[in-house]
Amino acid sequence: MNIHPVIIAGGSGTRFWPASRVRCPKQFLRIISPNTMIEQTIERVRSLCPEKNLLIVSSEMHHSLMEDLVRGKNFIILEEPFGRNTAPAIGLAALYLKKSGAGDDPMIVLPADHYINDVAQFRNRLVTGCRLAKEDGAIVTVGIVPTRPETGYGYLHRSRTQKEINGTAIYRVGRFVEKPNQENALNYVTSGEYFWNGGIFIFTPSAILEEIKMHLPAIYQGLLRIESSLGKPEFSEILRSVYRDLPSVSIDYGVMEKTERPILAVPGDFGWSDVGSWNSVHQLREKEWDVAGNLVHGKGILMDTRSALLFNQSNQTLVTLGLKDIIIVSTDEVTLVADARRSQDMRMVIEELKKRGLEELL
Amino acid sequence: MNIHPVIIAGGSGTRFWPASRVRCPKQFLRIISPNTMIEQTIERVRSLCPEKNLLIVSSEMHHSLMEDLVRGKNFIILEEPFGRNTAPAIGLAALYLKKSGAGDDPMIVLPADHYINDVAQFRNRLVTGCRLAKEDGAIVTVGIVPTRPETGYGYLHRSRTQKEINGTAIYRVGRFVEKPNQENALNYVTSGEYFWNGGIFIFTPSAILEEIKMHLPAIYQGLLRIESSLGKPEFSEILRSVYRDLPSVSIDYGVMEKTERPILAVPGDFGWSDVGSWNSVHQLREKEWDVAGNLVHGKGILMDTRSALLFNQSNQTLVTLGLKDIIIVSTDEVTLVADARRSQDMRMVIEELKKRGLEELL
Repeated sequence: MNIHPVIIAGGSGTRFWPASRVRCPKQFLRIISPNTMIEQTIERVRSLCPEKNLLIVSSEMHHSLMEDLVRGKNFIILEEPFGRNTAPAIGLAALYLKKSGAGDDPMIVLPADHYINDVAQFRNRLVTGCRLAKEDGAIVTVGIVPTRPETGYGYLHRSRTQKEINGTAIYRVGRFVEKPNQENALNYVTSGEYFWNGGIFIFTPSAILEEIKMHLPAIYQGLLRIESSLGKPEFSEILRSVYRDLPSVSIDYGVMEKTERPILAVPGDFGWSDVGSWNSVHQLREKEWDVAGNLVHGKGILMDTRSALLFNQSNQTLVTLGLKDIIIVSTDEVTLVADARRSQDMRMVIEELKKRGLEELL
Repeated sequence: MNIHPVIIAGGSGTRFWPASRVRCPKQFLRIISPNTMIEQTIERVRSLCPEKNLLIVSSEMHHSLMEDLVRGKNFIILEEPFGRNTAPAIGLAALYLKKSGAGDDPMIVLPADHYINDVAQFRNRLVTGCRLAKEDGAIVTVGIVPTRPETGYGYLHRSRTQKEINGTAIYRVGRFVEKPNQENALNYVTSGEYFWNGGIFIFTPSAILEEIKMHLPAIYQGLLRIESSLGKPEFSEILRSVYRDLPSVSIDYGVMEKTERPILAVPGDFGWSDVGSWNSVHQLREKEWDVAGNLVHGKGILMDTRSALLFNQSNQTLVTLGLKDIIIVSTDEVTLVADARRSQDMRMVIEELKKRGLEELL
């Protein structure tokens, strides 16, 4: 089976500001390990296929960062001129693969910036998903078994068991659920009928292109215009001209919530996180805490300090005295000091910077 | 009356680290106003005498900082090669003044790094003190009327009223009291019989030299060796050789607590602080607070932050989110983030840096 991992790496989040910047977003940060998140994502799936099968959809804006990361590798890199959410990115990758003769091979869509603990199980689930996608022409997602009533994630409601593969039950997905409130989240988790939506999808290029044609015709028309230029000198110019007018739509909203094709969920309980905030970085790296629960990256001296995350990318020394539950992130241009319980509120900070005309700090 | 203000500026405190450094201590900081603390101290007493009467005892280590400050002025600068506390510094100044023919003029000893609010009253009290010192040959101190049971200051116990000058009662000082505990401090303040010891002393050079001769003979012997070289090429070499072996003694301990000469206290309630911590800087600059009680110096953006002091000397932007009672001090080399209630504990930080061999940060 010829598998095609497709890593969606064009995002530009703000939740790790000031370590993440417009020109260096989360997937290029070394917040979880000495490698960048995108390198970790690549590493997890490399053994599933020949190097040349691995496709990364990146952003033109991060061209040189990406170039440094994949130097000497045979990965396929497609650079989007503008961010248009996941549906166009996945459509573009599917188009490329179909044109290369892989239209009926499974492609695995993977966010570039998530955390996975048990990589062996993760790979195993992906291979199961690929088989379903190839043999049944199905749309497959990996349903993350929830471990807490998280209100920050979307959920999948599963209906009946569809089949079993190597001891793993495969479910039909009933519906996609947006981020719930606390009460609903608790109900979902206790019911045992819900998965977290981890944004991992598996299908063949042919299948997803059919879905895009049906549910996102404007995007499909754009893809057709791009298709004719693939491998030709005018490709990049046409890509830019098409992308400029494409709507921004997520694959979840644009296809998954609308398709009449069955969606199958392969359950995964491999330890997953979307690494959505500094606080989650602190939690995920518990093994690296000192005795007082502090995590220190870079030059830092902590005195009478507990449960702190110091992420220091500058040449300064950070010194703390008498603090608790605090996040300090330092770069050459900015030092952020925040209450750890507020790490979800980075958007507020970004908005304030924009309001003050300090775009150069973003 | 020919008055000689003597500003003792050789100190090298650590309580304002990292803004204060070994090579740039508190008196050279602009923590209270756009001027340095020593400039403020000079400004307060300049009108009391001709420019050439003002004498500053500084440290050799801060030669160029001092040079920049007094460029074009006719102040007398005496540079100590080593810090030996206040008794040798005051003795050296007295020696210099006596040799210049001012042995029976009043000299006012002033710490270089204190805060005074009502400068008119302050000057008035100093002039009263000078009259007492000149006419009675007395040792005079300004007794600061306490406004709270502060445990961080030394106290003076006054005995009976000695006399009255222009409506100001002058007291005899009974004894000098070290920093008290909370209970004693409260008793002192409620008794009405205690002043804070602000380290401001007035006497004639002849009088203080006699006292040093009697109570600090080793220092007096050193001063005699220096005296013969005053104004000669070998002065600086002899000063160094004498200072190396001088004991470190404060004028309070070495003379004030031992003298049999009456000590008079001129009361002052002009709004005084020794500016002993970042927290006191925050308190003293209340007029500059924003509505949430924050004081910001340099580039800072505060969000949902209350009672914070940001003192930013670096080119970085400091950003805070969700904080309260916090002190952040940033230089090009260090950022300190501390609980405001711990601002008295800077010594702990300094000790830790020494323990880690990070003297270059001091």
